[in-house]
Amino acid sequence: MPQSRPLAISMGDPAGIGPEIIAKAWAARVAHDLPPFVAIGDIRAIERVWSGPVVGIADPAETATVFAGALPVLSVEDAGEIMPGNPDVEGARCALHALELAVGLAKTGAARALVTGPVSKAKLYAIGFTHPGQTEFVAERFGVAGENAVMMLAGPSLRVVPITTHVPLGDVASLLSVDLIVAKGRATARGLTRNFGIAAPRLAFAGFNPHAGEQGALGREEIDIIAPAIELLRAEGIDATGPFAADTLFHPRARATYDAALCCYHDQALVPLKTIHFDEGVNITLGLPIVRTSPDHGTAFAIAGKDLAEPGAMIAAIAMAGQASDRRAAQSAESR
Amino acid sequence: MPQSRPLAISMGDPAGIGPEIIAKAWAARVAHDLPPFVAIGDIRAIERVWSGPVVGIADPAETATVFAGALPVLSVEDAGEIMPGNPDVEGARCALHALELAVGLAKTGAARALVTGPVSKAKLYAIGFTHPGQTEFVAERFGVAGENAVMMLAGPSLRVVPITTHVPLGDVASLLSVDLIVAKGRATARGLTRNFGIAAPRLAFAGFNPHAGEQGALGREEIDIIAPAIELLRAEGIDATGPFAADTLFHPRARATYDAALCCYHDQALVPLKTIHFDEGVNITLGLPIVRTSPDHGTAFAIAGKDLAEPGAMIAAIAMAGQASDRRAAQSAESR
Repeated sequence: MPQSRPLAISMGDPAGIGPEIIAKAWAARVAHDLPPFVAIGDIRAIERVWSGPVVGIADPAETATVFAGALPVLSVEDAGEIMPGNPDVEGARCALHALELAVGLAKTGAARALVTGPVSKAKLYAIGFTHPGQTEFVAERFGVAGENAVMMLAGPSLRVVPITTHVPLGDVASLLSVDLIVAKGRATARGLTRNFGIAAPRLAFAGFNPHAGEQGALGREEIDIIAPAIELLRAEGIDATGPFAADTLFHPRARATYDAALCCYHDQALVPLKTIHFDEGVNITLGLPIVRTSPDHGTAFAIAGKDLAEPGAMIAAIAMAGQASDRRAAQSAESR
Repeated sequence: MPQSRPLAISMGDPAGIGPEIIAKAWAARVAHDLPPFVAIGDIRAIERVWSGPVVGIADPAETATVFAGALPVLSVEDAGEIMPGNPDVEGARCALHALELAVGLAKTGAARALVTGPVSKAKLYAIGFTHPGQTEFVAERFGVAGENAVMMLAGPSLRVVPITTHVPLGDVASLLSVDLIVAKGRATARGLTRNFGIAAPRLAFAGFNPHAGEQGALGREEIDIIAPAIELLRAEGIDATGPFAADTLFHPRARATYDAALCCYHDQALVPLKTIHFDEGVNITLGLPIVRTSPDHGTAFAIAGKDLAEPGAMIAAIAMAGQASDRRAAQSAESR
């Protein structure tokens, strides 16, 4: 049964497409059977790009009564002069405070899950933000170590986990370790069960080198690091297979053989995901005590304020957060 | 107008699926409007896995009269005892001699293009073959330097060129150079015009690092190597753009903006190609004086002799070789 607590959605940078896609998701709430949510940020950022009904609220609990007729917004500090497409320091500050508040609501239980809108990392860095991205920020706020928080990108027919993320490709080989791969594999398996209801998740690991190294002829990372990690995971009872040649791991027949593909580096995971599911990819953080999702795209400043933003990924992120938090609630109820 | 000279198809390893997919392609010659071709290898390798009509010929010129009613085969030396799924040294020798003969026929003009069946590199190495693959062997036979011979993988909606190929991923950064990228870009542009009839080809270059390096924050290969190479190509009048973030370069709207994507390494090119076009990818070598194509898959020993092999990629390779050699003949006629 759906819960009555709302999802908390941080608006992201007020000059980006976050406000617009949240409003468009609200407008599509019935068609997509979306659970009630509250947007967090500066209410003016929404009003500036959207003419539909918006209501400022002071308590997330008001969402239940407001949501059917208007988009509920919980305001944080004033974002200054908001110019769609022109991010500034005030906007970054507003985005960060919206994220803080949304995390806090999820932590206290006032919100049942967290959805984060797109931020400008460059602008956040300018105001002293020191995390690589929102995923790491949220993980730290929940006291979860980096290797146990997993960024998964999920579309309708493919889920991928990049084992390393935003680092130069030349650094990846030195960052890969048996421990890191085992930690990511464990968190992924557990996350698939908790968030997606998959009782015995099948994990497929991609090799690092072309043809997964061809028995060492084209590199040794598979032999020295990835295969031993897979063995350890299997010894724990996790259905882990590979390392497989990455180029033959993502066509439709291959995708049917696993629940998530764990990849060595950013593009190995993101290229197939975005090639297939460009407008509907959801970023979900596994390994947290709460559900957190995000549309898998950026602020798109170039099209902000022009009514051109596609809300598909935001809608998918909201739907996934709702379903995952329902599953978790059901699992908690069972285990009581 | 189609030419009367046949395509020469080397059979590949006689214990692999090469003989079967060539026979199945012949059976589909009318449905796919395939030009006449002659298979080169041990005729028994075909007869062992296929019960359709086969005729041994002694001169490729006989193809024209034979092709409508039977698959013409030009035999090279006896391949010993042929056991589908069990490659051996005699089979590798037969595969190599078939390749030599097919190349020779293309060189003398007795064949109008070359299609190569899948070989076992391991078995070829065992008999003293020293080239990384058939592409390099063919290039050397035509006196074309490696950096000027380009391996392109082509499917119905995407063409990709890996700038580096079968090397450990950790070695790629040190192999990338402005000269190499410029040479591959030039050969690709020229090859798209000659083989595909594209007058002003649009080349899109992928970055090496995630997000194409984010202005240097995630790696410098884009700034130091790729961007300068693109500038040089543009100065020559070639429509080269990038470097682009690889993860957003292969979805349908992005693919519509270029004629070929040039990628830094094997998996960056092959992952999107095989994700989208797994059963229909063609390997075409650009930069040779003749047309050479190949189905983009291996010997598939595991399914050899079981009538399970899909001929789609071989059919596509034959059709592409026929069309490309027609285009080249028309261009030569025009320029006379």
